[in-house]
Amino acid sequence: MNQYKIPEGFRFAAMDAGIASGERLDLALAVADTPSPAALVTTTNKVIASCVALNRSHMRSNDGLVRAILVNAGCANACTGEQGDADALRCAEILAGLLDCPVEQILVFSTGVIGKPLPMDRFEAGIPKLHAALSRIPENVEAWAKAILTTDLVTKIQERQIGTGTLLGIAKGSGMIHPNMATMLGFLFGDAELPLELGVLLQAALARSFHLISVDGDTSTNDSLLLWSSAKQNLGDSGDEAAWIEALHDCSRELAKSIVRDGEGAKKLLRVEARGAATGHQAQVAARTIASSLLVRTAVAGEDANWGRILAAAGRSGAEIDTRKAKVGIGEAVLFSDDQPHAAAEAAATEHLRGDEVLLWCDLGCGQESAEYWTCDLTEGYIRINADYRT
Amino acid sequence: MNQYKIPEGFRFAAMDAGIASGERLDLALAVADTPSPAALVTTTNKVIASCVALNRSHMRSNDGLVRAILVNAGCANACTGEQGDADALRCAEILAGLLDCPVEQILVFSTGVIGKPLPMDRFEAGIPKLHAALSRIPENVEAWAKAILTTDLVTKIQERQIGTGTLLGIAKGSGMIHPNMATMLGFLFGDAELPLELGVLLQAALARSFHLISVDGDTSTNDSLLLWSSAKQNLGDSGDEAAWIEALHDCSRELAKSIVRDGEGAKKLLRVEARGAATGHQAQVAARTIASSLLVRTAVAGEDANWGRILAAAGRSGAEIDTRKAKVGIGEAVLFSDDQPHAAAEAAATEHLRGDEVLLWCDLGCGQESAEYWTCDLTEGYIRINADYRT
Repeated sequence: MNQYKIPEGFRFAAMDAGIASGERLDLALAVADTPSPAALVTTTNKVIASCVALNRSHMRSNDGLVRAILVNAGCANACTGEQGDADALRCAEILAGLLDCPVEQILVFSTGVIGKPLPMDRFEAGIPKLHAALSRIPENVEAWAKAILTTDLVTKIQERQIGTGTLLGIAKGSGMIHPNMATMLGFLFGDAELPLELGVLLQAALARSFHLISVDGDTSTNDSLLLWSSAKQNLGDSGDEAAWIEALHDCSRELAKSIVRDGEGAKKLLRVEARGAATGHQAQVAARTIASSLLVRTAVAGEDANWGRILAAAGRSGAEIDTRKAKVGIGEAVLFSDDQPHAAAEAAATEHLRGDEVLLWCDLGCGQESAEYWTCDLTEGYIRINADYRT
Repeated sequence: MNQYKIPEGFRFAAMDAGIASGERLDLALAVADTPSPAALVTTTNKVIASCVALNRSHMRSNDGLVRAILVNAGCANACTGEQGDADALRCAEILAGLLDCPVEQILVFSTGVIGKPLPMDRFEAGIPKLHAALSRIPENVEAWAKAILTTDLVTKIQERQIGTGTLLGIAKGSGMIHPNMATMLGFLFGDAELPLELGVLLQAALARSFHLISVDGDTSTNDSLLLWSSAKQNLGDSGDEAAWIEALHDCSRELAKSIVRDGEGAKKLLRVEARGAATGHQAQVAARTIASSLLVRTAVAGEDANWGRILAAAGRSGAEIDTRKAKVGIGEAVLFSDDQPHAAAEAAATEHLRGDEVLLWCDLGCGQESAEYWTCDLTEGYIRINADYRT
């Protein structure tokens, strides 16, 4: 992972500022050399963290230009009242002072426990040190990706080259994962000058990636996804626009999948496909319902080819389904079709379930539309992690 | 539990017919002395078991009069094609022959694994034996309640006296539990002659009981709830109509709660209250979303007063919420109000969480409406049970 390029115009730093418990990196700073175009999508939860409120306000008044972002793990700064709002603003002010830029060009992101105030002394002491440590070495990017994690087991970094240009994606998330919106923190750093609005590009990428994943159906108070480009490279140098958009989608998709793969307690990545739907929307609804079913996900954890649960989930999804024409399969094995179970196919399905990546599919027998969705198996590990999260 | 009365006009029998694996009761028969008024509600899942299809058809053509019901555990007879339909009908036909009644007056219920055909030889041999064993002794009712269980740990029986009349409720369910519809099998036997339509009475009771519970968000292909009255007692003898309806609601409510209390892997019964909502519907949506949150339910399993998850769940429910006025509590402890966490209240909340019955509440700060919902904590036991269900 040490071979990747870093998009032009950005510098990174991370440190253990003593915010999260234990010895671990927990504060990360990324700075653009000049104020650079950015688009931000935030949680649809009506209860939002102070940082989300601040960032929304800043994005309304900074003409879409961002100079720096600060991310901390260990404390979500959500449900912390006016003190939380003041603390988030204070973090931005410290940085704006160091960078000599308008405070509106600073965004702050927090992730961790709800209802705990930010330990502001740690921020006051840490931010200047972070600022002094900014650099473009890959080690700093890797440390940055570590510093934003909570219950994640692995860092999530994706990098793509488009001509001479570079796109770098970093994300965190392994619980409280459900679409609308991205249900995690995600940062996409690019250096291409783009003809389309970043917000449009970001929404299109979201629809094909972070909106298609679920770990537990919960969306957090802090979810945010940022697309940020230094615009140092024009597309003549960095390949054409289509290639760049393709890279953005691919990068988002792989980050989204890596979040699911790292789902709390997860041992397997599940791809769920709904096929043969009457409409695209119905395909999505069916795929999401199957992927969100605890019974389906626990069966996969138990490597049990319990196709009846897949069909039952499709049946309660609200999508039209013709049970006489429906089919259900795991991997290449067709377990139900022509209104009949196929017990002989279960051995192949069980073999497929033993792998790390599992495909579950259901053909609704009503049309030509299809959709996919990603989730992970639901194991006892998920329960352990979330029962003991704060202790 | 041996002291209860049995509603007039019904007889019961149960046996080990060799349908479910292991030595256990798995086939149950209840017969009314004469064709008796009944109302049936069945699953909203679009994939339905053959027995559900048969019962719906019978209830359309039997003038609401039912003579007997047959219930088996171990095999859901769902997704079993035309053979499944033929098997369900054959069970009804055997019984109709023994009772010398129209086949439409027979209802059949199945619960268990999806996609497995009914072992018809066991039904052919068992049904006549069951018919011969019918009686009104409490032991038979208790055996009946046992014979309909699957992953349930305990039987679910409720009995109420209204004047000289009796209402007896028996249910099964501990997984695949979510409202719309009752997400389990439930049978309410009464002996009062009622002025209102049974269907109206049943829907009203449902709205206040089985529609307010969730174990895992899954609704099965076989869920059914039956209200059945021999009409032997007129209300002059058995108390007034209001008392009877109150008993029906109470009985349904206690059965619903007993299902949740017996939720797969559950150690605690959770009552979730949404208060201060702008509308009754929003109160319901918020209560249901909190009760369905895996993060809330795992926190309760860990006896962690993680009120932030309650507020975050309310925030994503879609209900209007004023975070500045919202309050969150566990038991009597107020953990968040006036836009501030109250760390000092956490000890009392944690103490409350150690109990078997837990109250979680959220005041949305937007109005006067409230709603409650019941669920259970989500433990590693749920995962174990459902990962290994078929093995």
